[in-house]
Amino acid sequence: MDERRLRELLEEVASGQLDIEQACARLRNLPFEDLGYAKVDHHRALRQGFPEVVLCQGKTCEQIEGIVQSLHKSADVILATRATADIFACIQALIPEAVYHEEARIIQIGEPPSQSASIALVISAGTSDIPVAEEAAVTAAAIGARVERLYDVGVSGLHRLLGHQELLDAAAVLVVVAGMEGALASVVGGLVDKPVVAVPTSVGYGANLGGIAPLLTMLNSCAGGVAVVNIDNGFGAGYFAAMLCKQLG
Amino acid sequence: MDERRLRELLEEVASGQLDIEQACARLRNLPFEDLGYAKVDHHRALRQGFPEVVLCQGKTCEQIEGIVQSLHKSADVILATRATADIFACIQALIPEAVYHEEARIIQIGEPPSQSASIALVISAGTSDIPVAEEAAVTAAAIGARVERLYDVGVSGLHRLLGHQELLDAAAVLVVVAGMEGALASVVGGLVDKPVVAVPTSVGYGANLGGIAPLLTMLNSCAGGVAVVNIDNGFGAGYFAAMLCKQLG
Amino acid sequence: MDERRLRELLEEVASGQLDIEQACARLRNLPFEDLGYAKVDHHRALRQGFPEVVLCQGKTCEQIEGIVQSLHKSADVILATRATADIFACIQALIPEAVYHEEARIIQIGEPPSQSASIALVISAGTSDIPVAEEAAVTAAAIGARVERLYDVGVSGLHRLLGHQELLDAAAVLVVVAGMEGALASVVGGLVDKPVVAVPTSVGYGANLGGIAPLLTMLNSCAGGVAVVNIDNGFGAGYFAAMLCKQLG
Amino acid sequence: MDERRLRELLEEVASGQLDIEQACARLRNLPFEDLGYAKVDHHRALRQGFPEVVLCQGKTCEQIEGIVQSLHKSADVILATRATADIFACIQALIPEAVYHEEARIIQIGEPPSQSASIALVISAGTSDIPVAEEAAVTAAAIGARVERLYDVGVSGLHRLLGHQELLDAAAVLVVVAGMEGALASVVGGLVDKPVVAVPTSVGYGANLGGIAPLLTMLNSCAGGVAVVNIDNGFGAGYFAAMLCKQLG
Amino acid sequence: MDERRLRELLEEVASGQLDIEQACARLRNLPFEDLGYAKVDHHRALRQGFPEVVLCQGKTCEQIEGIVQSLHKSADVILATRATADIFACIQALIPEAVYHEEARIIQIGEPPSQSASIALVISAGTSDIPVAEEAAVTAAAIGARVERLYDVGVSGLHRLLGHQELLDAAAVLVVVAGMEGALASVVGGLVDKPVVAVPTSVGYGANLGGIAPLLTMLNSCAGGVAVVNIDNGFGAGYFAAMLCKQLG
Amino acid sequence: MDERRLRELLEEVASGQLDIEQACARLRNLPFEDLGYAKVDHHRALRQGFPEVVLCQGKTCEQIEGIVQSLHKSADVILATRATADIFACIQALIPEAVYHEEARIIQIGEPPSQSASIALVISAGTSDIPVAEEAAVTAAAIGARVERLYDVGVSGLHRLLGHQELLDAAAVLVVVAGMEGALASVVGGLVDKPVVAVPTSVGYGANLGGIAPLLTMLNSCAGGVAVVNIDNGFGAGYFAAMLCKQLG
Amino acid sequence: MDERRLRELLEEVASGQLDIEQACARLRNLPFEDLGYAKVDHHRALRQGFPEVVLCQGKTCEQIEGIVQSLHKSADVILATRATADIFACIQALIPEAVYHEEARIIQIGEPPSQSASIALVISAGTSDIPVAEEAAVTAAAIGARVERLYDVGVSGLHRLLGHQELLDAAAVLVVVAGMEGALASVVGGLVDKPVVAVPTSVGYGANLGGIAPLLTMLNSCAGGVAVVNIDNGFGAGYFAAMLCKQLG
Amino acid sequence: MDERRLRELLEEVASGQLDIEQACARLRNLPFEDLGYAKVDHHRALRQGFPEVVLCQGKTCEQIEGIVQSLHKSADVILATRATADIFACIQALIPEAVYHEEARIIQIGEPPSQSASIALVISAGTSDIPVAEEAAVTAAAIGARVERLYDVGVSGLHRLLGHQELLDAAAVLVVVAGMEGALASVVGGLVDKPVVAVPTSVGYGANLGGIAPLLTMLNSCAGGVAVVNIDNGFGAGYFAAMLCKQLG
Repeated sequence: MDERRLRELLEEVASGQLDIEQACARLRNLPFEDLGYAKVDHHRALRQGFPEVVLCQGKTCEQIEGIVQSLHKSADVILATRATADIFACIQALIPEAVYHEEARIIQIGEPPSQSASIALVISAGTSDIPVAEEAAVTAAAIGARVERLYDVGVSGLHRLLGHQELLDAAAVLVVVAGMEGALASVVGGLVDKPVVAVPTSVGYGANLGGIAPLLTMLNSCAGGVAVVNIDNGFGAGYFAAMLCKQLG
Repeated sequence: MDERRLRELLEEVASGQLDIEQACARLRNLPFEDLGYAKVDHHRALRQGFPEVVLCQGKTCEQIEGIVQSLHKSADVILATRATADIFACIQALIPEAVYHEEARIIQIGEPPSQSASIALVISAGTSDIPVAEEAAVTAAAIGARVERLYDVGVSGLHRLLGHQELLDAAAVLVVVAGMEGALASVVGGLVDKPVVAVPTSVGYGANLGGIAPLLTMLNSCAGGVAVVNIDNGFGAGYFAAMLCKQLG
Repeated sequence: MDERRLRELLEEVASGQLDIEQACARLRNLPFEDLGYAKVDHHRALRQGFPEVVLCQGKTCEQIEGIVQSLHKSADVILATRATADIFACIQALIPEAVYHEEARIIQIGEPPSQSASIALVISAGTSDIPVAEEAAVTAAAIGARVERLYDVGVSGLHRLLGHQELLDAAAVLVVVAGMEGALASVVGGLVDKPVVAVPTSVGYGANLGGIAPLLTMLNSCAGGVAVVNIDNGFGAGYFAAMLCKQLG
Repeated sequence: MDERRLRELLEEVASGQLDIEQACARLRNLPFEDLGYAKVDHHRALRQGFPEVVLCQGKTCEQIEGIVQSLHKSADVILATRATADIFACIQALIPEAVYHEEARIIQIGEPPSQSASIALVISAGTSDIPVAEEAAVTAAAIGARVERLYDVGVSGLHRLLGHQELLDAAAVLVVVAGMEGALASVVGGLVDKPVVAVPTSVGYGANLGGIAPLLTMLNSCAGGVAVVNIDNGFGAGYFAAMLCKQLG
Repeated sequence: MDERRLRELLEEVASGQLDIEQACARLRNLPFEDLGYAKVDHHRALRQGFPEVVLCQGKTCEQIEGIVQSLHKSADVILATRATADIFACIQALIPEAVYHEEARIIQIGEPPSQSASIALVISAGTSDIPVAEEAAVTAAAIGARVERLYDVGVSGLHRLLGHQELLDAAAVLVVVAGMEGALASVVGGLVDKPVVAVPTSVGYGANLGGIAPLLTMLNSCAGGVAVVNIDNGFGAGYFAAMLCKQLG
Repeated sequence: MDERRLRELLEEVASGQLDIEQACARLRNLPFEDLGYAKVDHHRALRQGFPEVVLCQGKTCEQIEGIVQSLHKSADVILATRATADIFACIQALIPEAVYHEEARIIQIGEPPSQSASIALVISAGTSDIPVAEEAAVTAAAIGARVERLYDVGVSGLHRLLGHQELLDAAAVLVVVAGMEGALASVVGGLVDKPVVAVPTSVGYGANLGGIAPLLTMLNSCAGGVAVVNIDNGFGAGYFAAMLCKQLG
Repeated sequence: MDERRLRELLEEVASGQLDIEQACARLRNLPFEDLGYAKVDHHRALRQGFPEVVLCQGKTCEQIEGIVQSLHKSADVILATRATADIFACIQALIPEAVYHEEARIIQIGEPPSQSASIALVISAGTSDIPVAEEAAVTAAAIGARVERLYDVGVSGLHRLLGHQELLDAAAVLVVVAGMEGALASVVGGLVDKPVVAVPTSVGYGANLGGIAPLLTMLNSCAGGVAVVNIDNGFGAGYFAAMLCKQLG
Repeated sequence: MDERRLRELLEEVASGQLDIEQACARLRNLPFEDLGYAKVDHHRALRQGFPEVVLCQGKTCEQIEGIVQSLHKSADVILATRATADIFACIQALIPEAVYHEEARIIQIGEPPSQSASIALVISAGTSDIPVAEEAAVTAAAIGARVERLYDVGVSGLHRLLGHQELLDAAAVLVVVAGMEGALASVVGGLVDKPVVAVPTSVGYGANLGGIAPLLTMLNSCAGGVAVVNIDNGFGAGYFAAMLCKQLG
């Protein structure tokens, strides 16, 4: 319910078209659809600039189908993240134009109306970090950001990164995806004058603690301009980066 | 052994019906049945207002069967939580009227003698939190509370919750079930003047740490009137809420 | 802003007494007073049954004075917790009838209009846990609960607790305050059929981890009906217990 | 050393003005000044859009003076964070125009050449979070962002926040500063379609774990578009937000 | 190499039967058998009163067979802990008189030469803790302690424990095995004047943290005379208890 | 209340000397003295073989004085642990024969009636661990154990320990006190066939984590027969060791 | 790009053979091969003395094949660690001379040109630690170190280690691999005057915390000259040790 | 007791100069001096190549004086680490030639007989890390290593490090000291082919967790050849590095 709708409602009250009980009730009801197990949020696109995204993890196939169908009524683009091939099979049967980004584990339906000129550059430290990096890249692109990729440029061979300074400088925002010790975020943060969204991954073993080590590294970054999202949360970083790109145009 | 039985015993001693050795022995023996692997506590209903509940996790089918059969002799309602479909099959073969609440993973035998007028409202933040919420709801209902449900009203779309203020106000106690960051408990705590029992769930990934993140969130709630149970402990919250409702009537 | 005020506002709109712009604005504005560093919430008493409580820790004397003076305009009872003697000196100079509960570290202004018949029993495991227990007891009493105390009855000498079964049975809700290993909450939970609000304290050393040990103990309680608040949060437990007593009358 | 300087150097080599040994050496040397205990980075302004910021914590007065004097030669604006009043006294004796933002604990020398039109909105959950919020606000303003403040709007009294939706909508980026359970970041994230930089603070006690609780809350935020900086790192959030505003203009 | 052997060696040197190089070498060599992957310690029985025990976890069947065969040459009793049924099949093929204690997951070969008069009482809090309790009981018995068992007497139904005070008083040492919150160790510690060896188990979920919760509970026990072994380490507790019983006779 | 007193009471009921109400009441009352802030447990000596020990930490001087005076009526030996010199001054004014073991921070009043023949050997790894070792040694001696000391024999110079094998062999129980990495407990455990009570200390820095490192080391000891008490809990280890020695005579 | 190549390039610029644009570009490009998912680092051998090692964990078979083939063009020796038998089958099909060290889970292609005279001694505490020890030994040997092995010499039977003092003294560097409590590293560190590289393993259970316990033990070692690598990181320790041996010759 | 002394002893036995009892006794006694609170280890120089180092933290002035005087009899160089100015005053009164390295907090008595040709390069990330770096540098020099320093070259301004590649290449071993996120160790590890000893420092705040963050970073380093010592353990790193340099000459 936006400002305009609120004024209309009050005008209907003022003109007597709507009685007070009805107005009271309507002011309490904002547009969401109740599926019982889920309250699908149809005006999130108005409020947040992008429709609700379905996190598949922990939901049954039936629940995902129900939510996707409900969103399909009103949304330009629908994303379902952490989707297995089985879930994609269900969704594709329902909505044949659905696309599966396998490495990113994302189901996408529809395309964004436009693409930003400003670039979100997604960087990965190692080959094993690519699935998370792809989750970020696919998400950002689906929301309308122009996305570039730079993979396997970890700090143990610094020249691989330093050789791409031009690409680093061209980006409006950088998403740095790294597991192990996660030092790449600090190094990139020291090389650019743009915001860096750091994504720790659970790639590693032992004292990596399932991604806690790179998470702490990134939170303690000595370089300015680095903010961090949850471990393996490529989606969150891509979403954040796309929000910036869309503001910049 | 309650107060009345103690007086009777002492009267038997006073009247010489019971000699001192026997009295000594009986004062040491309180009513529980020893199955070897379990000491079934038949007077818990007297002491705690509800019979012993069987936590199936970590027990063999044979052990659960033995305990349920022993409880069946004296209890109005029996609950077996964290029960798989396999365990239900065993129990149903034994006690055909047993009912399986699949989403809640609870086996229930019998019904509570009465239902409270006061309401325990069970709220879930997301769709994935529903199994834990159902464990709370089924437990509370089995003990005799009137239960209402409000699911998928997490803080990322606050209007879904704010649209149900009336329901929030009607409850005598609220159970808030939330994973991810668990912020819903604080928000609900700030909207009502009733006790809130918060249940963190292990829904999430990475820095969620298997539910530690929402647990800490709820323990640090800036809203008054929020108390917390263990991660995924829907049973505990439902039990606590029902205790309140039964006192209120 | 309560239901009644909303109806009045809409009636003013319907009758033309209030124009739409003003109504829009007023619907956005709920009653709080902005002190710059604090937004004092004057209708919390309506919404939550008790005025905002001032947590002194981390606030300057000037800030506390400002907030207390602002609350003083509308509240029956004001509580300022974690208050040092110095802070009390400031407040007393301002409001001479202020009372300082030294052991509980609480400043209280005013008295609750009535006291519940139902009892909140505050139990402490050891002598060192008494300050937190007193914070709970003073808070609950200030909100209007009838409070009883039972101190130094830890599990290393179980008979001290078992000797008070009558008092345990008389309570409508029990607050159990314990540091060290915090086992008292489980033991009390097994002896009563009433809700137990457990408060871990930071009393202990080494593997106590500043109260984490009793916190975990209480969260994992094998007794039903135990819910937990933050370490040393006597206030939270007292507030929660008083909410129950006030509902029960 | 920027692109232009590299070309000039190579042209000098091509023209024979510079011999190869000298060119080799110069390509190795980038401009920093070596104070022994510190290597002051004079071309960071070129590389990162803002001069090196001095974190006073852990440095002696003499070291801070040396670094500030060295930076003073080339920088428009100098910031020294986590500065005590004593450190300010030292610096002011050296550079009289230095200004001390007491609540933010920041020493500022000079003003940014321009201010962005886009707004960085700094929000605090409680009164005790204001020092960290001020660190963010002063930092962002010093770098050239237009800053607005909205303090003490925590989730326990949600209407205090909801009453400022207009201000939320006006911001290009929001910095949310919260201790205790840190739920405010998720709530704000659900109300806006702009990036939210969340700052957990160490305000709280017990299971707050020195800010770990709100840190985890924010990392697990169920709202999209939330990224997180270190506990109490107001500087980092302000710097990140200003980078966005400066790109937007 | 014991005292007697050392004297003999020095006597051989004194008498010229052994030259100095040989003596040097022999003083470096103590009796163990080198299997390449394991150095079997044949004189541990002399040094520690019981032969080396084989922890099967993490070893291949071949390695376990080799070690058991090597020990079989010199040991009265051999224990292999954490043994699966598959491992038992291997060992039984080799040494037909081997016995498998299924619940305790222990393979035993041989019997202790005698049994102590003093009692090691093994207590379990719940039914699910029995496998660990059995590991303790079987171990203690195999080393020569007289073992009694008292299972499923957790603190949520205290009378189950209090009803066995006589058995508690008869024990020379008590092994208390408990998961969940592990409060039983403190309660038992407060009821007896004998040493209590506490074994936390990983039975539980959520904030149980795989047994860390009862481990901390037991370490912080407010009752004197409680010492703790590793989570699920029934073997260690049984071994410790048996050492006491054997000293007492 | 012991068995004998129970029989007497029942005999009085049988003979009519005691009416039922009185008997009921008395069965509820076990002997402890209520000081308000403390319930002093006078029959602990009967139940546990040693009177209640006063942990001074967290108690006021007045509280400690009250408890000590109450215990002084019935106890042979009184111990007050973690006592500062100030607390000793208070106690000495009250009870002039009180003795202060400064390094152990223990106040002792009275002597044990007898000393065991069997030896409790207290071993410290380093010089800095001595205060905790002394707490163990003084406690064990006060309860009646014969105590020997072996200090500064950490594993970095193994010969210092190996040179005392005879002393190790003479002990009935060994208390090993070690900070840093705590490896000494495992090494001692491998050299003896007697129970080892390990005490981790908070001596160390960094990844020592206030004693968590040696605590974990000791819990994971690969040597059999090692049980562990809380960090810096010399008292607990001395108490445990003395219980063994007193059983052995 | 080494020093020599840089001079040549600058000489070509000086002589006009290379224009400035080309020189600029080339200075930005260092030799790595871009496979899309990986940037293979061909000059690491020059920079680090050994080619890039492939960590197989988290990579697909296709990715590993691609990287190995790319490295095969220029490297003397290739190592692929954490390789399963399936991965070896893929690689062997491609490069038949590849060898699989099964226990070490390493695929090796080629042999080092020479072997050092100085010895890297790899010591394991238990049989279960051998896979990690073998990873260290195979790695060190593949890089050119002379490797000796000493396995199953944990501290619970100290004489097994003390009997090999001669071997300890012969080593130039020692790699100590230990799980459980990891005390072996301190003991070895106290016996030698050479650097000790300690490798904690995840062998153990409960409070071992997946190797955190021995990791902390080793970091807190009271013996000088002990440095630590990640849990189960045999590769890292072998690599480190070989670097030393190669310097020593 | 070295090999030569052992032979002599055995020869005395063979020749009848020493009887067997005496030989037995002497073989048990290795040379350390027992001060009661400390067993000073005089033959550590033989066994470990450097005399015992006194860690002052946790010791009284009297204890330190005693140990230093005892060591002074036999040692070339004595180091006392973590020494305050007060401790230095005590020691200087005793041994006037003692020198105090203030920044390193080390007292040094005597000089090493020779200095290695190979270089230990000590690198610090920031100015605040210098005290720990100095502890490493002074220690390594005192043991006989040639030491070079490179301070304040953290990754946020990478050119400061890259400008010193020549110095990096000249070192035989590198000690990298870094707090905050500790990324410098990985970056240095990727630039050199020599062993890197990484020292995390407790410099930082919040999620730095007192140095745990850089510790984890360094343990998870993606660069080969990095080993780690305890947080703030400059001494340990300097000792380790010097051991390498002394072997290399």
